[in-house]
Amino acid sequence: MKVRRSERLVDMTQYLLEHPHTLITLPFFAKRYGSAKSSISEDLGIIKKTFIARDKGFLETLPGAAGGVRFIPKMSESSALEIVEELCKRLSEKDRLLPGGYVYLSDLLGEPELLRQVGQIIASKYSDQKIDAVMTVATKGVPIAQAVAYHLNVPFVIVRRDSKITEGSTVSVNYVSGSSERIEKMELSKRSLKRGSRVLVVDDFMKGGGTVNGMKGLIEEFESELAGIMVFAESTFSGRRMIDSYDSLLCVEAVDSQTKTIKVVPGNYFK
Amino acid sequence: MKVRRSERLVDMTQYLLEHPHTLITLPFFAKRYGSAKSSISEDLGIIKKTFIARDKGFLETLPGAAGGVRFIPKMSESSALEIVEELCKRLSEKDRLLPGGYVYLSDLLGEPELLRQVGQIIASKYSDQKIDAVMTVATKGVPIAQAVAYHLNVPFVIVRRDSKITEGSTVSVNYVSGSSERIEKMELSKRSLKRGSRVLVVDDFMKGGGTVNGMKGLIEEFESELAGIMVFAESTFSGRRMIDSYDSLLCVEAVDSQTKTIKVVPGNYFK
Repeated sequence: MKVRRSERLVDMTQYLLEHPHTLITLPFFAKRYGSAKSSISEDLGIIKKTFIARDKGFLETLPGAAGGVRFIPKMSESSALEIVEELCKRLSEKDRLLPGGYVYLSDLLGEPELLRQVGQIIASKYSDQKIDAVMTVATKGVPIAQAVAYHLNVPFVIVRRDSKITEGSTVSVNYVSGSSERIEKMELSKRSLKRGSRVLVVDDFMKGGGTVNGMKGLIEEFESELAGIMVFAESTFSGRRMIDSYDSLLCVEAVDSQTKTIKVVPGNYFK
Repeated sequence: MKVRRSERLVDMTQYLLEHPHTLITLPFFAKRYGSAKSSISEDLGIIKKTFIARDKGFLETLPGAAGGVRFIPKMSESSALEIVEELCKRLSEKDRLLPGGYVYLSDLLGEPELLRQVGQIIASKYSDQKIDAVMTVATKGVPIAQAVAYHLNVPFVIVRRDSKITEGSTVSVNYVSGSSERIEKMELSKRSLKRGSRVLVVDDFMKGGGTVNGMKGLIEEFESELAGIMVFAESTFSGRRMIDSYDSLLCVEAVDSQTKTIKVVPGNYFK
């Protein structure tokens, strides 16, 4: 059964969006719609043009017999900054300030629409790199890891501070919690990460960088490679940070418990 | 600037997919493309037809001045069953069996593509109900909650067994862990759930139902209402289950540690 162009465009758009970073061959689409490959090529041209115009990413076309098309989600820095500036405002709300100068984030990290955008922004930065897995630590990093992993089309793995029977054998490392200088332990299920993986580390919040540093250690234990570190928010830290290279979407510059004010600016992702 | 139909179809499809369960007015699209409302209506007709043909869900159109269109993701039971039967095979793999008869699931719950499908399947069941929030317990329920919440366009909240300073004030309940009959404690940040919410509970694995029962108790503490309980996998349980009404996508019927065999069948979602 032949499918008309208008319907093909709707279905191809949907299919491509749901399969980011996945090579889809022209014959696959040609068969799906009972159409000639030349028609499919024209359709893809329209989709490509629209995605670029709407800042959704681009279609990478690979010529030849093994060729096809791949959708690479990519958001421009200016669109990303718009979203992050809106987030700065929300993070600066007075009632987010918790005892000890912490900032309440859990509601934001439970909004699927926001997570989708954050996932797109972070994935955009690594869209042209080989990433095999996204790593985070339980619990609040998980939604961010999932959103990023979706847009990179790679699995995500969850490091835990408490061992669970349902994880099977684990590999553990000790690490120094940066802010409190306590020695803690984190572990990852042995079968969750292949040797030689390139791993992107994400987390919700970074102060001293101890937790992220622990994950760096775990990656070494798995004979894998750190591809990058990206945190949703960082706070200015008076001590010496345990890691030197990372990106943040947001930076909590100052909190004042007396006046209950929080000053949040875009992070070094934009520098 | 007027936008051609082909480009409108691509962008509208993308926009609708990224905003499930959200009312989008005709004037919004008309302005976005510089097109007449009658053209937009025709476009929506094409998208509607294609989504139905491809089992993606439907477009609900609301007439009148306050009207517009809403995309409701919905997967048919037969498509859902196909995905779940494939999952049964993967869950039955020998090397998933852990000491104590537990089944290793963490890799599956870290696959974004699978989570998207699971989210669609679960959200389909509740697509015509009023759901205000999805609730789960840390850690492994989180990816499922996020996927479901995305397709229902509602926030998700994470119940924790350990209190964290970054959660602010919490409400806690004690509950009986069904399998081990220990008394445990779980808590939820006070500001994360509004009174009078209708809450869908999801979790990765259910044995005795103690954890899910604890969440039921928490929902009562928040003067909210339980809309349903949905678990990714359940295992047959010899004792008395603490909850009577729930749905499962998968059922681990039997495990044999000697022969290392696991028997997994589709859950009662399909009954």
